[in-house]
Amino acid sequence: MGALEEAHLAACGCGDEEEEGEEDLLAELGGGEAPGDAMEPAVRALLAGLGEDDRREGLRRTPKRVAKAFRDGTRGYRQKVKDIVQGALFPEVGVDKRTGSAGGTGGQVVVRDIDLYSYCESCLLPFSIQCHVGYVPSGGRVVGLSKLSRVADVFAKRFQNPQRLANEVCGAVHASIQPAGVAVAMQCWHIPLPENFKCKNSRALIRTSHSSRSGVFEGENSSFWNDFLALLKLRGIDMEMDSHSASLTWCPLRPHEVPLCNGHAKRITTNGASSAKSASIPSNMVSAVSSMLLSLGEDPLRKELLGSPQRYVQWLMRFRACNLDVKLNGFTLNSASVYERPGEDATDHRAISSELHLPFCAQCEHHLLPFYGVVHIGYFGSGDGEGINRSHFQALVHFYGCKLQVQERMTRQIAEAVYSVSHRGAIVVVEANHICMISRGIEKIRSSTATVAVLGQFSTDFSAKASFLQNILDTANQEV
Amino acid sequence: MGALEEAHLAACGCGDEEEEGEEDLLAELGGGEAPGDAMEPAVRALLAGLGEDDRREGLRRTPKRVAKAFRDGTRGYRQKVKDIVQGALFPEVGVDKRTGSAGGTGGQVVVRDIDLYSYCESCLLPFSIQCHVGYVPSGGRVVGLSKLSRVADVFAKRFQNPQRLANEVCGAVHASIQPAGVAVAMQCWHIPLPENFKCKNSRALIRTSHSSRSGVFEGENSSFWNDFLALLKLRGIDMEMDSHSASLTWCPLRPHEVPLCNGHAKRITTNGASSAKSASIPSNMVSAVSSMLLSLGEDPLRKELLGSPQRYVQWLMRFRACNLDVKLNGFTLNSASVYERPGEDATDHRAISSELHLPFCAQCEHHLLPFYGVVHIGYFGSGDGEGINRSHFQALVHFYGCKLQVQERMTRQIAEAVYSVSHRGAIVVVEANHICMISRGIEKIRSSTATVAVLGQFSTDFSAKASFLQNILDTANQEV
Repeated sequence: MGALEEAHLAACGCGDEEEEGEEDLLAELGGGEAPGDAMEPAVRALLAGLGEDDRREGLRRTPKRVAKAFRDGTRGYRQKVKDIVQGALFPEVGVDKRTGSAGGTGGQVVVRDIDLYSYCESCLLPFSIQCHVGYVPSGGRVVGLSKLSRVADVFAKRFQNPQRLANEVCGAVHASIQPAGVAVAMQCWHIPLPENFKCKNSRALIRTSHSSRSGVFEGENSSFWNDFLALLKLRGIDMEMDSHSASLTWCPLRPHEVPLCNGHAKRITTNGASSAKSASIPSNMVSAVSSMLLSLGEDPLRKELLGSPQRYVQWLMRFRACNLDVKLNGFTLNSASVYERPGEDATDHRAISSELHLPFCAQCEHHLLPFYGVVHIGYFGSGDGEGINRSHFQALVHFYGCKLQVQERMTRQIAEAVYSVSHRGAIVVVEANHICMISRGIEKIRSSTATVAVLGQFSTDFSAKASFLQNILDTANQEV
Repeated sequence: MGALEEAHLAACGCGDEEEEGEEDLLAELGGGEAPGDAMEPAVRALLAGLGEDDRREGLRRTPKRVAKAFRDGTRGYRQKVKDIVQGALFPEVGVDKRTGSAGGTGGQVVVRDIDLYSYCESCLLPFSIQCHVGYVPSGGRVVGLSKLSRVADVFAKRFQNPQRLANEVCGAVHASIQPAGVAVAMQCWHIPLPENFKCKNSRALIRTSHSSRSGVFEGENSSFWNDFLALLKLRGIDMEMDSHSASLTWCPLRPHEVPLCNGHAKRITTNGASSAKSASIPSNMVSAVSSMLLSLGEDPLRKELLGSPQRYVQWLMRFRACNLDVKLNGFTLNSASVYERPGEDATDHRAISSELHLPFCAQCEHHLLPFYGVVHIGYFGSGDGEGINRSHFQALVHFYGCKLQVQERMTRQIAEAVYSVSHRGAIVVVEANHICMISRGIEKIRSSTATVAVLGQFSTDFSAKASFLQNILDTANQEV
């Protein structure tokens, strides 16, 4: 914040990350204190610390992309609410107070389901937000609806924690529109630690709910607040049911809290695994991240950011390169999870085995941002011998997933590893949400990427492949 | 297209519509043929034709906003696919053809659920798209995932019909990446005529499905195409079930087809209501729209655009200002649809009557774009006499909805009309999707706006209000 708070830029969040021309943006703004070109060298230091060669093709432009993503993700520091709301206040007739509340005097307006992305100030990773903003007009004027979303985005595009975000949006809408009151409610989702994607429900991101209110929404029996909650319920959002969640843990990288799958938090002791890991974090990587914060116009000494560079590096180091190669050698694929294909004998040696919906979390090498989802593995079972089980496949997925990756390569590598023991045929389907597709430029919130690798018999036996794909569909809604 | 096709601009779609500075964009590009400043005078001509005073506060900046929305919505004419894909092709190892298909050689990649918006070339109104793009890498290289979405957006941001859009995206991805093949599938939703929002399910926009494919996806038994369809099914998208829909009607403003609620098309004769309406369309408004097309770099004489300015004006004229005022006088509110409040006697004169989920379609006066949804009306029934029924309320909603509006005002006006006969109390809740919130700058696809007006007894009797809001929730999933 600080020096940048007052500088306004017509920010553009939808530029192509390959485009040039924004390079000097921060340099210009930050002055001597935060040289804009510190970002890319810092990212290069991180890549080196991760054991990566930043000259290889996939990583060559990663420093540029990461710098741009961070700059774009924190553009809110360089925006002013006043500039957004100005010119979008419209006179609107209301009714006499004695008659009731409607239109420009008391007629509540709620924009529900505004999808946003922000950055967690504890670990510097993005988190997603479903935001709902309501206000009660006064003085016979209303604001253009899109402005509520734009104002919320100004504060989302900073390093935040969810409750402060709710408070700041509420305060800014109140100050700029001067209505009778403002209500903000939000659901937030944070990515868990990679190992916690092993939960049965891989879609279980860490979720909390938050709210903030001013003016006529305040007080236990505010009729406006009750209406606001009722209007959210019409969209399936129950803030009352969520009210306990605010006390739950949020960022899983904060040292004293490790969230569990059931939504409860486990407190770990200082000599636990977590502190052991943090001891091995290279200080030059931590300094690199601090210099990135400075470049973005943030103060790394701000109370809430103390320890954040370390946590970010701690997250990245989980995806450190290793030169090991994992094979499934020594195992025989058995028929434990073989399913029969229609019209075939169960003893048919062509029967397909499968392990479906194996959760994973990888780190996109183009953007240093997580992508996560499920892996489905199929192979032709040998039908005899002692074999490998689901936990072996999960370990295989973890090995190929937990590094700087691209989904296409990970899919092929897992397929090749399975093929190295099944010999006759392997098929792998990976379905993933890419945070880089969601939080950066294009912001395609709902998009999901699927990749396929087909080796050996699966590449010629189309009915075997179709049968495997159908099996994924059939089991999609089951607990596995 | 034409002259602008080759001109490339780093287009920005997320600017604030109040911002200045893009004014001379088209003027620069269009040269003498299409003066950039033709847009705003054209919009002013449309407003005058609609009987509106463009000096009133809500409309004062509407010409600027409409011009900006159209420019932004057609920015694809000024973008080049080559510039987007360039620098985002990455070498990626594949496998030997005899082994199978994976990674950079044959490993299919599908990005599913890309939300887009385009403009219908038949009527110039926006339509929404759920787009799925797959390709099969060859030559050991893959493309950055976000580029598939960006390339699709280049062609969406033009005047389109859905099938050509699918074809153009497919062709452009193929030409720029040179993969083994490309598959594109899309669901598209077009707004129906305002009167057709009277269908029981008000969410029933006109929906069609389209696909396009090249290379290894071609042919009836393409295994890659079958895999593509199977991967879409994992997201609940069934193209085979949709395949009949492509033959259905699309734009409801095309003269010879009027879509019905059940998805079938009715062919109307030339002396039907539709042609009678078009006869009354002022030619100066049609010329204004043609000049807008020219300004946007389009050719109004392009075959597919012939008649489009007329259809756009025809759409707008449905929202023409009228100075009538509708009251419910002459009716007595009866108790036909009264529901009992818990713990109350049914004969209690405080019993609430309600008409819920009344569909409507209005035109946003700030952007000349539709907003549509449902109106919920509650009042204290008198409990006797002959009364008004649902169709009267529907007519009331249609009267206040079918004009240039803002949701806040419409909510108040309906409440006041009901209050003028119920005297004791009226409550109105409007829930709407604003195309201006979805198709322009902020692109908040899922957002939905709710407004409330509370008059008379409802403003003091909080339990009556809560009971009404609960009733909306309880009936939300019922056919009404």
